[in-house]
Amino acid sequence: MKVNIPESDQKRVVIIGGGFAGINLAKQLAKSDYQIVLVDKNNYHQFQPLFYQVAMAGLEPSSIAFPLRKIFQKNRNIYIRVTEVLKIDKANNRLETTLGIMNFDYLVMAVGADTNFFGNENLAKYCIPMKSVGEALYLRNAIFNDYEIALSTDDFEERQGYIDVVIVGGGPTGVEVAGALAEMKKYILPKDYPELDNKEVDIYLVQSGDRLLKGMSDEAAEKALKYLRDIGVKVILNNRVVDVDENFVFMKDGTTIRSRKVIWAAGITGNKIEGLPDDCTVRGNRLKVNAFSQIECFDNIFAIGDIAYMEDAAYPQGHPQVAQVAIQQGKHLAKNLKRLSKGKDQVPFKYKDLGAMATIGRHLAVVDLPRFKTQGSFAWFVWLFVHLFSLIGMRNKVIVFINWVWNYFTYDQSLRLIIKVKERNGKKV
Amino acid sequence: MKVNIPESDQKRVVIIGGGFAGINLAKQLAKSDYQIVLVDKNNYHQFQPLFYQVAMAGLEPSSIAFPLRKIFQKNRNIYIRVTEVLKIDKANNRLETTLGIMNFDYLVMAVGADTNFFGNENLAKYCIPMKSVGEALYLRNAIFNDYEIALSTDDFEERQGYIDVVIVGGGPTGVEVAGALAEMKKYILPKDYPELDNKEVDIYLVQSGDRLLKGMSDEAAEKALKYLRDIGVKVILNNRVVDVDENFVFMKDGTTIRSRKVIWAAGITGNKIEGLPDDCTVRGNRLKVNAFSQIECFDNIFAIGDIAYMEDAAYPQGHPQVAQVAIQQGKHLAKNLKRLSKGKDQVPFKYKDLGAMATIGRHLAVVDLPRFKTQGSFAWFVWLFVHLFSLIGMRNKVIVFINWVWNYFTYDQSLRLIIKVKERNGKKV
Repeated sequence: MKVNIPESDQKRVVIIGGGFAGINLAKQLAKSDYQIVLVDKNNYHQFQPLFYQVAMAGLEPSSIAFPLRKIFQKNRNIYIRVTEVLKIDKANNRLETTLGIMNFDYLVMAVGADTNFFGNENLAKYCIPMKSVGEALYLRNAIFNDYEIALSTDDFEERQGYIDVVIVGGGPTGVEVAGALAEMKKYILPKDYPELDNKEVDIYLVQSGDRLLKGMSDEAAEKALKYLRDIGVKVILNNRVVDVDENFVFMKDGTTIRSRKVIWAAGITGNKIEGLPDDCTVRGNRLKVNAFSQIECFDNIFAIGDIAYMEDAAYPQGHPQVAQVAIQQGKHLAKNLKRLSKGKDQVPFKYKDLGAMATIGRHLAVVDLPRFKTQGSFAWFVWLFVHLFSLIGMRNKVIVFINWVWNYFTYDQSLRLIIKVKERNGKKV
Repeated sequence: MKVNIPESDQKRVVIIGGGFAGINLAKQLAKSDYQIVLVDKNNYHQFQPLFYQVAMAGLEPSSIAFPLRKIFQKNRNIYIRVTEVLKIDKANNRLETTLGIMNFDYLVMAVGADTNFFGNENLAKYCIPMKSVGEALYLRNAIFNDYEIALSTDDFEERQGYIDVVIVGGGPTGVEVAGALAEMKKYILPKDYPELDNKEVDIYLVQSGDRLLKGMSDEAAEKALKYLRDIGVKVILNNRVVDVDENFVFMKDGTTIRSRKVIWAAGITGNKIEGLPDDCTVRGNRLKVNAFSQIECFDNIFAIGDIAYMEDAAYPQGHPQVAQVAIQQGKHLAKNLKRLSKGKDQVPFKYKDLGAMATIGRHLAVVDLPRFKTQGSFAWFVWLFVHLFSLIGMRNKVIVFINWVWNYFTYDQSLRLIIKVKERNGKKV
């Protein structure tokens, strides 16, 4: 069965993935000569940098997820299909999806990356990833569910398993989750769970290297470490998690930590779709592309964002897998596709590093900008400002702003719901 | 195993259910001589009157659900336990719960009611109820999921199944859902799904009697019918749904409607907990109580709200199962329990009818108050005002207010997300 999309004289660009890369590409092509089909398995774009706030009950999913159809409401050359791509049929320039067959003239892989458990089945089974709104909601539910169980658990050791949290990975996600949990412990727990002894709650952050926030400056790394320790996070450096089971975390140095909640933020791997030859794929399951984002050997298949691996003089080992690269590659590819349609030459991509930042807690953040570095209160306001204005849609900005202001003054959100989507007839929708 | 709740000299009142009845009872007992244990299977109170707005993507779950722990943060004699009650052990004055055994001196059944499918297995299997936030989210997901599938469905008849909706039951819920769907069809569909032919979308409201809104005035019923028909709802009176399968709805008069989404709002039945003798239970699975809300034969077990059946001179067939009765019974029982602790006589409950209202759409509502009736624009503002101020928590009021104002001016919410809570390890939390 063919997916029902109007045939047109325009060449069709199919974009797989509505993340930062895919969205920015589609936006720039909105008024082009192409017919655009944007394919995603969700009907919304997710703002990854704030997943951790959903998990910590600081924001609602709807504040950081934005319906794809609403983003492109005014663009009549953009068709959205909510479906999963099963296979790329290169020979016939078409895709197999759960909705049916879909032709393309150009294909753009903007499929992103998912959590990497490095092939360890126990990690995959017991650890909690945080690479989607759905996973963030799972973590939120798990945290509050476990507090409820802990209240009725007399045994000290058993209770530790329910209330202690281990975060693996000292990148921005790990650091931000650890900071947010420490704030929850300080401000929320005593009010909501006065029966739990606050001092029993331990938050561990495990980083295999000797510093946090790899890729950011030494100043940022040192201050992040200091801030985290100041607010009570037990940061463990130069050690790593080698295995987990339902109740314990086993460390490389032979120690164990009792915890049923291990948040895994220690690596990502490209999302794989069947149909491209294996030699397109390099380390981390990324697709090797040239300076025009073309997957080598295929002049009509491109890859952008986390899934793409592009070497250039300034980044001989490829670009970092961050939002800014994805956004810039999306916009750049749009420019090249427009040039292509006018018979012009494509121009090579050049990444402009705008800096990096991470927040640890109230008035505590670290910011590296190209021209200056700052840590502390000012950095925190910079972080808030940048993230607020990066959100799609005025309504989301307003709602997130209100939530943050509310939280700032009351120290107390009211989103601590264990949300369940009811199943009917044995299935969720 | 015993549930870990501090032993105290105070007599313990266990309240099962954090709905309108349970919450209001607990609030009034917050500063009493009792130890209160509030038990619910969710960690939040749900504001039932606005479920339909969650289902229609007009509000987020967090706007109409409020964490129980936050409601009672300041009340140290109130203990909250998130668990399911499996059985009442009357002989020993204790409950069996999923967390363990729990003693009580007084037990209050505030367990509410759930959807009544009248024993029809097909109805229970295929129809969508709307008696919880989780069910409302299921409906939301189903609606938008089906629109996505409809886009790729060439066959007219098959497509009808995905886009047409049948609502069964002409009470406030049915009327409000039908009105909200008609508005979605008018304002949202053309923008989000320009590929779907708006005129193909049918919304049916089926009511077995010859009028809508039983229990409200004739004026309200007539205007509601007119408003619904004006905005395009196909209201079917004097007919009933006798059966459904995956694709069709079978009516009493022999006609069929092709629809995969049948919303069942045609009756409720009391939630049953094992352990009370059958002769306590009357029609609709309600528990028969005296004027003091005591279940007959047990002087320390009470029932309030939807689950309670109390006859009095003004209501010889029992009170209506609405929020106001639950709220008033909760408050009244608190008064009686306080009197009891002081050795005073209990006083009989008397229901004060504050009126009823339903909204159909923008500027369209019907309101019956004890002293006057009104329909249309003014009624709509009354409806908004009353519901806004009935919400718990200032933050929820503010967020809902912003959402409504936004919606009023833009005709377009941005909550149309198909939300899924990711499963891990084969389980949801």
